[in-house]
Amino acid sequence: MDFTVQDIIELLKNKQYKQLRATLAEMYPYEIAELFNSLSNEYVPLAFRLLPKELAAETFVEMDSDAQELLIKSFSDSELKEVIEELYIDDAVDIVEEMPANVVRRMLSQATPEMRRNINEILKYPELSAGSIMTTELVELKSFMSAGEAITRIRRTGVDKETINTCYVTAGDRKLIGVISLRTLILAEEDSIVADLMETNVLSVNTLEDREIAADMFNKYNIIALPVVDNESRLVGIITVDDAMEVMEEEVTEDIEKMAAIVPGDKPYLKTGVFETWLRRIPWLLLLMISATFTGSIINSFEKALTALPVLISFIPMLMDTGGNAGGQASVTVIRSLAIGDIEMSDILRVVWKELRTAFICGITLAAVGYGKILLVDNMIMGMGVSQMEALVVCITIFITVLCAKLVGCTLPILAKKIGLDPAVMASPFITTIVDAISLAIFFALSMLILL
Amino acid sequence: MDFTVQDIIELLKNKQYKQLRATLAEMYPYEIAELFNSLSNEYVPLAFRLLPKELAAETFVEMDSDAQELLIKSFSDSELKEVIEELYIDDAVDIVEEMPANVVRRMLSQATPEMRRNINEILKYPELSAGSIMTTELVELKSFMSAGEAITRIRRTGVDKETINTCYVTAGDRKLIGVISLRTLILAEEDSIVADLMETNVLSVNTLEDREIAADMFNKYNIIALPVVDNESRLVGIITVDDAMEVMEEEVTEDIEKMAAIVPGDKPYLKTGVFETWLRRIPWLLLLMISATFTGSIINSFEKALTALPVLISFIPMLMDTGGNAGGQASVTVIRSLAIGDIEMSDILRVVWKELRTAFICGITLAAVGYGKILLVDNMIMGMGVSQMEALVVCITIFITVLCAKLVGCTLPILAKKIGLDPAVMASPFITTIVDAISLAIFFALSMLILL
Repeated sequence: MDFTVQDIIELLKNKQYKQLRATLAEMYPYEIAELFNSLSNEYVPLAFRLLPKELAAETFVEMDSDAQELLIKSFSDSELKEVIEELYIDDAVDIVEEMPANVVRRMLSQATPEMRRNINEILKYPELSAGSIMTTELVELKSFMSAGEAITRIRRTGVDKETINTCYVTAGDRKLIGVISLRTLILAEEDSIVADLMETNVLSVNTLEDREIAADMFNKYNIIALPVVDNESRLVGIITVDDAMEVMEEEVTEDIEKMAAIVPGDKPYLKTGVFETWLRRIPWLLLLMISATFTGSIINSFEKALTALPVLISFIPMLMDTGGNAGGQASVTVIRSLAIGDIEMSDILRVVWKELRTAFICGITLAAVGYGKILLVDNMIMGMGVSQMEALVVCITIFITVLCAKLVGCTLPILAKKIGLDPAVMASPFITTIVDAISLAIFFALSMLILL
Repeated sequence: MDFTVQDIIELLKNKQYKQLRATLAEMYPYEIAELFNSLSNEYVPLAFRLLPKELAAETFVEMDSDAQELLIKSFSDSELKEVIEELYIDDAVDIVEEMPANVVRRMLSQATPEMRRNINEILKYPELSAGSIMTTELVELKSFMSAGEAITRIRRTGVDKETINTCYVTAGDRKLIGVISLRTLILAEEDSIVADLMETNVLSVNTLEDREIAADMFNKYNIIALPVVDNESRLVGIITVDDAMEVMEEEVTEDIEKMAAIVPGDKPYLKTGVFETWLRRIPWLLLLMISATFTGSIINSFEKALTALPVLISFIPMLMDTGGNAGGQASVTVIRSLAIGDIEMSDILRVVWKELRTAFICGITLAAVGYGKILLVDNMIMGMGVSQMEALVVCITIFITVLCAKLVGCTLPILAKKIGLDPAVMASPFITTIVDAISLAIFFALSMLILL
């Protein structure tokens, strides 16, 4: 962006509206929205009014909900009407969902009856369903039309459709019977019939399908629009690729949050209040803190060994961390592979076998390096005076811990999925808590066995 | 998929090729590829030959590289030629990059001279650059054409272009001067001039730009194709949205792997050999194991306190885990927010302030619950006999640890980005190692201060 917030404020202050309008007109909605988001509230409505009608609506869609609310409140009814008329249904729905009731009422009162009907139509679908992210503005064709007629129809009705690149062929009862791309129509002979040109094996999702599944289909099947049908396979709307990409991004964020022991939310970080942030983080913190009691009790039950061999205590962090990291690597790899379909539940044995072998050489490496480190660093440099036997116990523990950690790490996510839980929950924090207990149990058992 | 591998094998065995061909013809390339991937090698070439020409090429693109190599080797030159002719340049390049040299040589020898030139053209761009994922098959228009002429040109040349939904307007020297959608052309008057219809403020990337930056632009600007230009801003190709989505998915996987202390690779999990998996996991495991020495030395230096108050030892895991989890939550949230542009480096103070307040109430909650847990569970149930004072020390430690953990967790990723490192590296494993040391230092310092 070659244009800074300062420049804009300058131009606004000096009332150089003409120049400002010219500059804004050359920018992309996304850039203008970014600019407005960082502009202090008093200036936004003024600057917004300088935008050409269509660009204004496109920019409005890109702004964050606070700024949108601010603007709507500053709009006259006619201004609001103008913006709403330019919006695509699915964008309008997104905005309506974010606004407080009174603002929504005002928005709907300014929308055309048809748009109001469409918005309410989409609003009634469950929050994370395919229906909730679709738009109802699509080009519908009939199978008996010729390519020429179809194009004429597109020319007549296409202006306010979200996409005309893909058109949908329906029977009398709006049953979806085919899909045809504008490309096919353009490249076909004028008089060839849609029925012969269209793809009859139509990919579609049910309105109530999970939006994530719908979004994933875009990547799998390389499509730029996906029709949404009701239980009678009647065409009710389409999902466009831009919305699919947004869903993918949100779903990834959700997965990553779950992997970090956070309860996913739907607001961007800086827009989430401290209390809500706390609410999303504290449950797992509490749960994991309390489960650590178990690990503690293990230490407790081996108190004798520890007081007899105090030097062992100093290896506890290293053993716990190594186990946690080794397990985390396995679990996160498996979670992601499950998410992008690289592995299925049925692959569990292949996964275990691969992890076992990987764990084996990882364990050997870590044990060997660990042994050298104890002799060189801990003893020679830090003079901790760790005996050969003690060092051996530590290293055997490392080896067994890594084996267990990788095994637990790779199996739990798959098992979680098997019983219908979200694999993402079985990531590092959870795995670590389990592996801690295992590693310490092994450590002390070996100590008693070999050292006492 | 209503059609199983068994069914296919049956049909193949019984030589019911006609029926098999009919069934396959009704499936999507992605589905057929999935099917073939799980089909034993001997059957794949036979089944593949049953596919109609175009579907065959589309399926070939979707198959994994082993299966592709197998097929190419089974192809006659003419069969190979047929498939290659149907491929889009960017898909052909993807395949060539995966194949061993001798296969590549054979592929290129069967490609048309022009295709060979195009493939080599794209191959010369660096691996992760925008140029490496572009296609050179695009529709080029001239600004003086009328909408009608433009459409005629598209009809004449569009057949073998990857997309005709967006067309690019170039000057004599191939300089990119505008972009125009097929939609605009269709909806415009036949005799209106491209120069008046086209968008002159063209979004484009340089061939050498990072492919991740190119991919992100699709989401930001809601585009379905992005022109790629050289240093003289001459049009050399376009990136289509399907390739952008693939890049996004790969980049997310990379980030997630980094967050889990794994060195990112480019092969799917089950296709990665054990040795390579080891190679990608061992560096961080070693580094973190050795850094844990520091934490160990802290314990060591407080040995006196521990032998005097052995019960304290049993709280070490709980303190370490809670610190690690609290810090991990903060770091992962910040890393993801940076990745999707929810926060900038300049937001660091707002981030710190939010995390401080969140950490404060998280710390209070955990300390309070921890205190109750010690009295109820540890003492009454498990009879550990923790004194009031010891419990107090543990809880104060929890509180301070959470404060430090969140602070470290939210600042390190931002600082990493500031000095040009990848923030994703500053995730749980790394943070945990640091926070472990902090929490134990606090713990023992307080113990000495209050309890001895």
